[in-house]
Amino acid sequence: MKVSDLGEFGLIDVLSELVDSDPKYGEAWNNLKIGIGDDAAVWRCRSADQLGTIDALVENVHFRLGLTTWEELGWKSLAVNLSDIAAMGGYPLYALVSLALPPETEVTDIVFFYQGMLALARDYDVAVIGGNISKSPLTMVNIAVIGDSPGSPPPLLTRTAAEPRDRIAVTGYLGAAAAGLEMLENKIQLDLSAMKELRQAFCKPAPRLKEGRTLVLAGVVSGIDISDGLISDLGHICRSSGLGARVFANRLPVSPPVAKYFPDTALAKALSGGEDYELLFTAPDEIMKDACDRLENMGCPATVIGEMVTDPENKIFVVGTDGKETEVKKSGWDHFAGEKRGI
Amino acid sequence: MKVSDLGEFGLIDVLSELVDSDPKYGEAWNNLKIGIGDDAAVWRCRSADQLGTIDALVENVHFRLGLTTWEELGWKSLAVNLSDIAAMGGYPLYALVSLALPPETEVTDIVFFYQGMLALARDYDVAVIGGNISKSPLTMVNIAVIGDSPGSPPPLLTRTAAEPRDRIAVTGYLGAAAAGLEMLENKIQLDLSAMKELRQAFCKPAPRLKEGRTLVLAGVVSGIDISDGLISDLGHICRSSGLGARVFANRLPVSPPVAKYFPDTALAKALSGGEDYELLFTAPDEIMKDACDRLENMGCPATVIGEMVTDPENKIFVVGTDGKETEVKKSGWDHFAGEKRGI
Repeated sequence: MKVSDLGEFGLIDVLSELVDSDPKYGEAWNNLKIGIGDDAAVWRCRSADQLGTIDALVENVHFRLGLTTWEELGWKSLAVNLSDIAAMGGYPLYALVSLALPPETEVTDIVFFYQGMLALARDYDVAVIGGNISKSPLTMVNIAVIGDSPGSPPPLLTRTAAEPRDRIAVTGYLGAAAAGLEMLENKIQLDLSAMKELRQAFCKPAPRLKEGRTLVLAGVVSGIDISDGLISDLGHICRSSGLGARVFANRLPVSPPVAKYFPDTALAKALSGGEDYELLFTAPDEIMKDACDRLENMGCPATVIGEMVTDPENKIFVVGTDGKETEVKKSGWDHFAGEKRGI
Repeated sequence: MKVSDLGEFGLIDVLSELVDSDPKYGEAWNNLKIGIGDDAAVWRCRSADQLGTIDALVENVHFRLGLTTWEELGWKSLAVNLSDIAAMGGYPLYALVSLALPPETEVTDIVFFYQGMLALARDYDVAVIGGNISKSPLTMVNIAVIGDSPGSPPPLLTRTAAEPRDRIAVTGYLGAAAAGLEMLENKIQLDLSAMKELRQAFCKPAPRLKEGRTLVLAGVVSGIDISDGLISDLGHICRSSGLGARVFANRLPVSPPVAKYFPDTALAKALSGGEDYELLFTAPDEIMKDACDRLENMGCPATVIGEMVTDPENKIFVVGTDGKETEVKKSGWDHFAGEKRGI
């Protein structure tokens, strides 16, 4: 059955039932007063500080329906928003979901989309509390997430709080999402475990929420998530904090299957591939050491890759394996540049 | 200059400066801790209950760039969300704005869009605190608005609170938005004041925020805004409250220029035209009388048009000018029905 057969309100009924039938644990659901079905959702605020973010996934720009499943798309659409909350060190609570769909979309595909999204929502006790459905010539997902940050004053990771001589570190491994996209686009065959890992990295990234909270508990105050690409996102920290940065290429935690199967482009993928949704954070030496220990203890790799430096021009230098410093002018995803630009 | 020339981050800088240079009054701005420029916005919660809503405007579905100006589009994109907050009787506070734009979009057009949106935001002390910009083959706007409802318990208008024998009333006049769209689409020439009024109704609707608050202060607890069409939105109240309704056609406050220039379709436009963004509310006789008096005193027309009735099948009957009752099966905007269906 197509969504045009079921109609807008029939589809809303199906999706409301899906959300209703889901188990509801945690603070977000406990504090929800009105969910899907009224003009706006209503919840009781459990703490003084609230966080809000919105993100879009556009067909043939962020995803292609031939390369990704609807279930993966649902997961990823929410994941990119939860990653923004993770990058602030906050807790996600509520999601508002706006779907723009061609009339010929299969209802079962939208059910798969919701199942993927709700699976991730369950993992982090996020409540889907409302949304919007529109007709559109192409599929587009917009999700807004509201979260909070308990504590007084609430600890947060911001882009403006980096200091000169801070160490720069990242969680996890880099380059896997870009390699996953290349693998899917070019139908590259690898060993099964590598294929699974790279597909997962691109199609079902895991937002680093627990890691973001761990960082703020360790006293880290400066961070961002890697969505556009390491250099591009580090550039945001540099400009917001009024600093420059130096990154050591040989310290980059390149994803092992990327290093193995994409040796020529592994470094470029790690530096500017984007969509890894790892956290990039900076802190003075002592705090950084403690933060990395805490992350490793919870099973999350953490790697120091460089340092913040005083530079009113906010330049980023990459120190190559040959010891040479190269200024990186621009790198990473710019929506209107039309292509990804490696260093 | 096109947005592809300026780039994503250049465009974000231009829009951030526009928001920054705007005067900032009111609780929303006072309580904002982090606005545009980080992974998420952060604000201090001033009251226990928060409201959230999201809405989309899709090119060639909700608007056509040949018929509406960018400034009007910016206004309307925010207005439809503020109307949802009005329909709950709440205060709007924060807006997250997601724009999907073709690369060849002119930067000045997006500046006009923001100017239109910010003009409305200023009127209601709404803070634009973040967003997202994506490339897309067509223009699409998604805005999420967070509001609140101070008071303990906070008074709200919901779709579920109508009672049998409640009177049904609407603010303002009906049918003007649908007539405005028809006028623009068919380039119909009317007298200047009618043209201005109908264009305004379709392109720059005024959200009934003060009126929504007035209703809750008068003790009204049941309401919705008319976005899909009077009958369709009344249908939401009927289904959510488990009731039926009877509407008297000769009591409908048809917009005067619509009655004058579109006599054959005026009634259909008022019943199912949609996008009027007036409030539809129900209340027992005494409360309704007081509520309508309060609205009239603030210069807002309020008209009782019918009554809620006990009906487990949630039927809506329209009593025609000849006294005959006709059941309205389906009416108003359904995204996947492909057309508006009159009664």
